[in-house]
Amino acid sequence: MTEKPVALLLAGGKSTRFWPLSEKNTYTYLGKNLVERHIETLKRLGFRDLIVVSSDKVFDWLVSNSERFSDFNINYVKQKEGINGMAGAVLSAVENYRTHFNGRSLYILNCNDIYDDVVHENMMEKFENRADVDVFVAGYEIKKYLPLGYFIFESGKIVGIKEKPGEDKMPSNLANLVAHLFRNPEKFLLKIEKIAKDKSNKDDIYEVALDLLFKEQGAEVVAYNGRWEILKYPWHVLSVMDYFLSEIRNTLIDPSAEVSDKAIISDKVIIAEGVKIMEGAKIVGPCYIGKNTVIGNNTMVRDSMVGENCVIGFGSEVTRSYLGDEIWLHTNYIGDSILEENISLGSGAVTGNLRLDEQSIFVTVKEEKINSNRNKLGMIVGTDVRFGVNSAIMPGVKIGSGSFVGPGVILAKDLPENKICLVKQEHLIKDNKNKIIKRKH
Amino acid sequence: MTEKPVALLLAGGKSTRFWPLSEKNTYTYLGKNLVERHIETLKRLGFRDLIVVSSDKVFDWLVSNSERFSDFNINYVKQKEGINGMAGAVLSAVENYRTHFNGRSLYILNCNDIYDDVVHENMMEKFENRADVDVFVAGYEIKKYLPLGYFIFESGKIVGIKEKPGEDKMPSNLANLVAHLFRNPEKFLLKIEKIAKDKSNKDDIYEVALDLLFKEQGAEVVAYNGRWEILKYPWHVLSVMDYFLSEIRNTLIDPSAEVSDKAIISDKVIIAEGVKIMEGAKIVGPCYIGKNTVIGNNTMVRDSMVGENCVIGFGSEVTRSYLGDEIWLHTNYIGDSILEENISLGSGAVTGNLRLDEQSIFVTVKEEKINSNRNKLGMIVGTDVRFGVNSAIMPGVKIGSGSFVGPGVILAKDLPENKICLVKQEHLIKDNKNKIIKRKH
Amino acid sequence: MTEKPVALLLAGGKSTRFWPLSEKNTYTYLGKNLVERHIETLKRLGFRDLIVVSSDKVFDWLVSNSERFSDFNINYVKQKEGINGMAGAVLSAVENYRTHFNGRSLYILNCNDIYDDVVHENMMEKFENRADVDVFVAGYEIKKYLPLGYFIFESGKIVGIKEKPGEDKMPSNLANLVAHLFRNPEKFLLKIEKIAKDKSNKDDIYEVALDLLFKEQGAEVVAYNGRWEILKYPWHVLSVMDYFLSEIRNTLIDPSAEVSDKAIISDKVIIAEGVKIMEGAKIVGPCYIGKNTVIGNNTMVRDSMVGENCVIGFGSEVTRSYLGDEIWLHTNYIGDSILEENISLGSGAVTGNLRLDEQSIFVTVKEEKINSNRNKLGMIVGTDVRFGVNSAIMPGVKIGSGSFVGPGVILAKDLPENKICLVKQEHLIKDNKNKIIKRKH
Repeated sequence: MTEKPVALLLAGGKSTRFWPLSEKNTYTYLGKNLVERHIETLKRLGFRDLIVVSSDKVFDWLVSNSERFSDFNINYVKQKEGINGMAGAVLSAVENYRTHFNGRSLYILNCNDIYDDVVHENMMEKFENRADVDVFVAGYEIKKYLPLGYFIFESGKIVGIKEKPGEDKMPSNLANLVAHLFRNPEKFLLKIEKIAKDKSNKDDIYEVALDLLFKEQGAEVVAYNGRWEILKYPWHVLSVMDYFLSEIRNTLIDPSAEVSDKAIISDKVIIAEGVKIMEGAKIVGPCYIGKNTVIGNNTMVRDSMVGENCVIGFGSEVTRSYLGDEIWLHTNYIGDSILEENISLGSGAVTGNLRLDEQSIFVTVKEEKINSNRNKLGMIVGTDVRFGVNSAIMPGVKIGSGSFVGPGVILAKDLPENKICLVKQEHLIKDNKNKIIKRKH
Repeated sequence: MTEKPVALLLAGGKSTRFWPLSEKNTYTYLGKNLVERHIETLKRLGFRDLIVVSSDKVFDWLVSNSERFSDFNINYVKQKEGINGMAGAVLSAVENYRTHFNGRSLYILNCNDIYDDVVHENMMEKFENRADVDVFVAGYEIKKYLPLGYFIFESGKIVGIKEKPGEDKMPSNLANLVAHLFRNPEKFLLKIEKIAKDKSNKDDIYEVALDLLFKEQGAEVVAYNGRWEILKYPWHVLSVMDYFLSEIRNTLIDPSAEVSDKAIISDKVIIAEGVKIMEGAKIVGPCYIGKNTVIGNNTMVRDSMVGENCVIGFGSEVTRSYLGDEIWLHTNYIGDSILEENISLGSGAVTGNLRLDEQSIFVTVKEEKINSNRNKLGMIVGTDVRFGVNSAIMPGVKIGSGSFVGPGVILAKDLPENKICLVKQEHLIKDNKNKIIKRKH
Repeated sequence: MTEKPVALLLAGGKSTRFWPLSEKNTYTYLGKNLVERHIETLKRLGFRDLIVVSSDKVFDWLVSNSERFSDFNINYVKQKEGINGMAGAVLSAVENYRTHFNGRSLYILNCNDIYDDVVHENMMEKFENRADVDVFVAGYEIKKYLPLGYFIFESGKIVGIKEKPGEDKMPSNLANLVAHLFRNPEKFLLKIEKIAKDKSNKDDIYEVALDLLFKEQGAEVVAYNGRWEILKYPWHVLSVMDYFLSEIRNTLIDPSAEVSDKAIISDKVIIAEGVKIMEGAKIVGPCYIGKNTVIGNNTMVRDSMVGENCVIGFGSEVTRSYLGDEIWLHTNYIGDSILEENISLGSGAVTGNLRLDEQSIFVTVKEEKINSNRNKLGMIVGTDVRFGVNSAIMPGVKIGSGSFVGPGVILAKDLPENKICLVKQEHLIKDNKNKIIKRKH
């Protein structure tokens, strides 16, 4: 058997388009974040050496969880400043690669791509059986045009890559999914280094280098037509959540959880340790309920993930939403929303998750209106946020960490971090000349 | 046995005071509209010939349902323009009558009057037994004065009619209920034709003709003291609904309906085919739940009719309300309200159905404030309306078809058709200097 | 056995700081008011003679309930105007005392102090066994400084009293609790009379007289370290409620109550006669539910007292709150609140009971901001108040009797009596150009 390549996991991005959510690679699904998931997959597939290019948050997480991967050779590298995009990430790792693994093959992966393990399996199979081929790349079979890079083929071999060709000009229906395997990576790394020297501020250095490599020596495609989710905008958390929810096969209730016999657990639900589920609660799977969370009386949770130490208080409903840890609800409706951590809502605060005209919801990202391509989308909230009673948040509105939304506020615009938004309500106070009416049964 | 009269059903009115609700005669109760109900009653009582003076909507309904009445001789006539009131309706039918049924007796009925079958039965009995009498009219025993026409009696015989005499000047306690039977109708029809020629724009031609006829030849009264509902203003739908709800004798659940054993069906409830009733729902009869409607978790429906394809979503309450087809609720309170068709409400939208001073609720009808004589009355809504989250609609407010009520709007005035009403909420946004508090269990 | 002293119960205060709540001594807990509780305690302990210095409301209550205490010698005295504080109350009673009980020992108690019976028991024991001592006073063992009067000791004997000494200058940790027993009261009464003559407008005449008496002849302390609640500010009703709730030992359901087998009664709950508890309701003790009250479907009541003839309507939650009689809720959240009598709330009206910054809640009392030392406190409401749908009342806000809070009002300031507060909401109404969307299942 051929020696397994060194894996290079790119998890160093800045997540600026992900605001108000923090670092996208440490977001947990079913209790595990994406870094952890990738590492576990690679271990299971027999990889033994890994370099992780890390953002600060990923780095800290790896350091504090290092003992969990002690039988696996992981090198953590912080992503350097100065070179944008994937090229910057790869170059941050090059020093490490050359020191420890020089001469070994290299498998480059993006941490915030989510797809099935079959991609790796097929990639490894071809790698073993096709010793004649130097470069293997995963190609995603596109059903509906998306603005990605598309492979150009000649005689079944990739000979180039075309970025965002437009719907009518796709050179093939196979798009570039970053699972790139180089039997002899040095040639590719040198290309990146060279281009980066000339024009370090470009975003597409990696792709240009890849295109050049393809032109010079071609590459073999490993086609894939399963599910592929990319975490780019914050609402993508919902699609990634769905991806993992759909992997739940059976209901699994930790023995330490207390589930009232007057509660209803319907379909596939994972209930972690210490969870309490009160009378009249209904959980419609697929759902994940994190450690020590309380699902209160007369509540409904559907197609959602709820983190640890949350309280889904009396009469609340959570539908198709991602709730991180320490979320406190109280007679609220949370639909198609993402709440990061340490957030509480006063009674009667609700999310609007559907426009009155039921059209696609646009979200402001870095001052640009982006079509989310969702007609159901609620709010997206950072950490440490409070909502007053009877407040209402409009579809697609984002709220920065450390901000308070006052009682009765109807919030139709994003609220930056560390702000208080209060409604200025004018009152008319006059004498009450009505006689008192005594209520009767 | 005497030959049954030709029945003449007046269903051609314009329903302008019925706004924002559409045509009142095609409103369904327990799944049947008023036209259908009248036709079925007449068939059951042995009538075989019927002329229906129809509005456009009634006409269309009759045409598309004609095969259902194939064993019954129905002539549809659209009401002509030009002559107001009941006289206009009768004259629209006269041509038809003279062509097909000349010489036969004639029984004139108003489609939007709702009363017990005993009226017809008693009328027919007298008609058979009192061959000496030419004209029979139903007289409603008034307990509390209402502005109707009252019969004037001499020696037990009607000799005139007095319109709206005032509470102190009622000539008798018997009011004119339009169930008018003419053994030889030609004389009456000629009177109407003559008066209409002289003053076609009057509203009371029919009544004047009747009064003249009474003066000339007298009439026999058929007294009635049961329930009588008149559909004139839109809130009358609620009284008519109560009339039909009170006729439900037993709970009746279609075998195709799915009723959770954790739901409660209390008292007399009709549940149509394909209905789903979820856990924690409670339906307190009398109620009617139309085809394929979903009554969601932890909901309450009382003393109401709910149409087809509705979703009474999580945590909603519907009390003493008429909901047409395709109504979508979501954590709402709907009390004493009428919602016509294709309406959805965002979470937390509610109806106010009681004034703070608990007095009678006035409703604006054609720019006039009309006392509804109800102290509980919610909203009245046309078709194709959307309500934003946490909106609140004040008692007696009407909303035109095709309009949107924005989130957080407190609507205290009628909203015309095809409008969007948004609240202009001013916000004060300042820096949040509070330190972050971590919530703990 | 020594003859029992005459008891003097001071229940004549004006309760001005108690606004918007009325007279504090006639507030009921577990169905009994404080006057009644004190009288019953004194009877049980063997007292036979009592003078009650009464406010108007206490006086009326005593008169209309006099037959209940017929075997007990009670003298009612209205508190006179002119002399402030406890001295005024005592002097109102002196005439009565001298006429009926002259020469007997005297036990002075404050009606709005709530503490355990052991105080009286220990007091009486010392009174019997220590014939050498003339004055006995209860001393409350302070754990955390409170602005009270503190006893000064010399050789184990009280020799003075120091009012509000400040946290660092407490002469002892025993504070003056008004359970003052005088074997020969005449000397004390004369001192009060004398001081009152010189400076009738002072508030501290009683305390000054007591200090003088201590200096002349000393006094014996009866120490107490149990629970002590003082009703001064309206939110103290909640602490007093907790005091009495904690005394409930077992769940007790009156046989006439109807409790659905789909309701949940958890922990210690007293359910009075005629109560109805509907399906899906949950009552988490300790709780008290008063006569003929209805706890509706899908409701939650926790750690609360609910008075008579209340309706806790569908979907409502009541937590740590005191509800008097005739309170009507409808899909509301009432937390840490006090509602006196005849109050109704429209659907969706809620209390905010926690500041967004989760700090202590301040309440305006007589134009001064008082720290309630609670971080959870809802609203405080007098009698005959109505709340519109979707209104929201901020923490610590007080609402005067006879006032209406309009729909959608966010009330952040106190509302005086007999006012209507409406929100002036500006609307933007424009044409709806959206095409109609038909909802589908």
